[in-house]
Amino acid sequence: MSSPRKVVELFYDVVSPYSWLAFEVLCRYRNVWNIDLKFKPAFLGGVMQGSDNRPPGVVPNKFYYMNTDLKRLSEYFVVPLNPPSNPFEAMFEKGSLNAMRFVTAVAEKNKEEDVVVERVSRELWKRIWSTDQDITKPASFIEAGLKAGLSANEVEEILTLAKSQPIKDKLKSATQEVLEYRCFGFPFIVCHVNGKAEVFFGSDRFELMAHCIGEKWMGPQPLKPTAKM
Amino acid sequence: MSSPRKVVELFYDVVSPYSWLAFEVLCRYRNVWNIDLKFKPAFLGGVMQGSDNRPPGVVPNKFYYMNTDLKRLSEYFVVPLNPPSNPFEAMFEKGSLNAMRFVTAVAEKNKEEDVVVERVSRELWKRIWSTDQDITKPASFIEAGLKAGLSANEVEEILTLAKSQPIKDKLKSATQEVLEYRCFGFPFIVCHVNGKAEVFFGSDRFELMAHCIGEKWMGPQPLKPTAKM
Repeated sequence: MSSPRKVVELFYDVVSPYSWLAFEVLCRYRNVWNIDLKFKPAFLGGVMQGSDNRPPGVVPNKFYYMNTDLKRLSEYFVVPLNPPSNPFEAMFEKGSLNAMRFVTAVAEKNKEEDVVVERVSRELWKRIWSTDQDITKPASFIEAGLKAGLSANEVEEILTLAKSQPIKDKLKSATQEVLEYRCFGFPFIVCHVNGKAEVFFGSDRFELMAHCIGEKWMGPQPLKPTAKM
Repeated sequence: MSSPRKVVELFYDVVSPYSWLAFEVLCRYRNVWNIDLKFKPAFLGGVMQGSDNRPPGVVPNKFYYMNTDLKRLSEYFVVPLNPPSNPFEAMFEKGSLNAMRFVTAVAEKNKEEDVVVERVSRELWKRIWSTDQDITKPASFIEAGLKAGLSANEVEEILTLAKSQPIKDKLKSATQEVLEYRCFGFPFIVCHVNGKAEVFFGSDRFELMAHCIGEKWMGPQPLKPTAKM
């Protein structure tokens, strides 16, 4: 008799590098832990505004630390993080509203296939947080979509859908949904355990999270020693 | 041939609950890892001001999360954290300037005996972060000092010393020292590895820290399974 899989929701934005770490770790653990991982693309700008939080970039020492921290975590988590040449501009000036509308449209078009949202999100993270490429223009979404395995037609359809009111509203409502959990930044992970929502902020609570959901933390690469893939 | 012990400096303030977690974890690992742990009492208020950072308390959602997070971490780390009834007042209004001057004076008087600073710091943390007691008045320092095993005479001497200019300056210079590492909050851990300073903020980077100093993270209670104490 196996116990039911625990629903774990990952609220993320591709503008957030710590979200990428959490995303890859949860993708790796999806088949190791007894969980049902749900991707919840949302808009970090809206969360910051809705919670009256400030990005770490405005405190120079925090920003400096973040660079060191990400470099070390990238190596340890085996995620090819590499900050854009102008992270402040990429993260706070250009932002991710269009990117997250695109991801939301991908999710809407592929409701039964999480793997498509997963691949598109990863391609967008790679652009901004690995190869220092744009994630604000239609051409960038086309490239990311094609790399993720979508056809040119599908990408065109998704691009149109991304501009529609229902998709704008859907992204807004996902952002509102996570703010109701009193979110103030990403990644924000909501674990549904025995009818209770246990929330975790950041990519540094996996050991504690595992403890809370009755699983075992085996480091950022659980499949490495006994590879099943 | 054993390699030389790596110096690990813990910059902390007893007003900071996450510092308490880091302090207890490092005290537990002190004899497990090949490290030379150095306590560095400093003043969080000065660090926040010097780095132009804001305490998490001013973002309501962050403050709410911190409560949940600390409750879970307290259990998982086995540290009897219990927030004061008015954490905002205790942390940001009353503050810890006198407390940290007292700890600095304890360190000055007991240069060869780290265990005294350790015990006094722990008693102060217990007061503010476990039993909701004051840590701003002389009577509180007397109580903490006695509980930590100091004699009444020693406590009196330290109280006088704590008000002296050299001790005020010493606390200021420890605070300045950590700001030079571009610190923006506590705990702040500086590991000296192969002539390089690797810095870690928070009580959630131990797994990564262990990796950086060539040690193994075994969870917050390394001595539990094979207790040596």
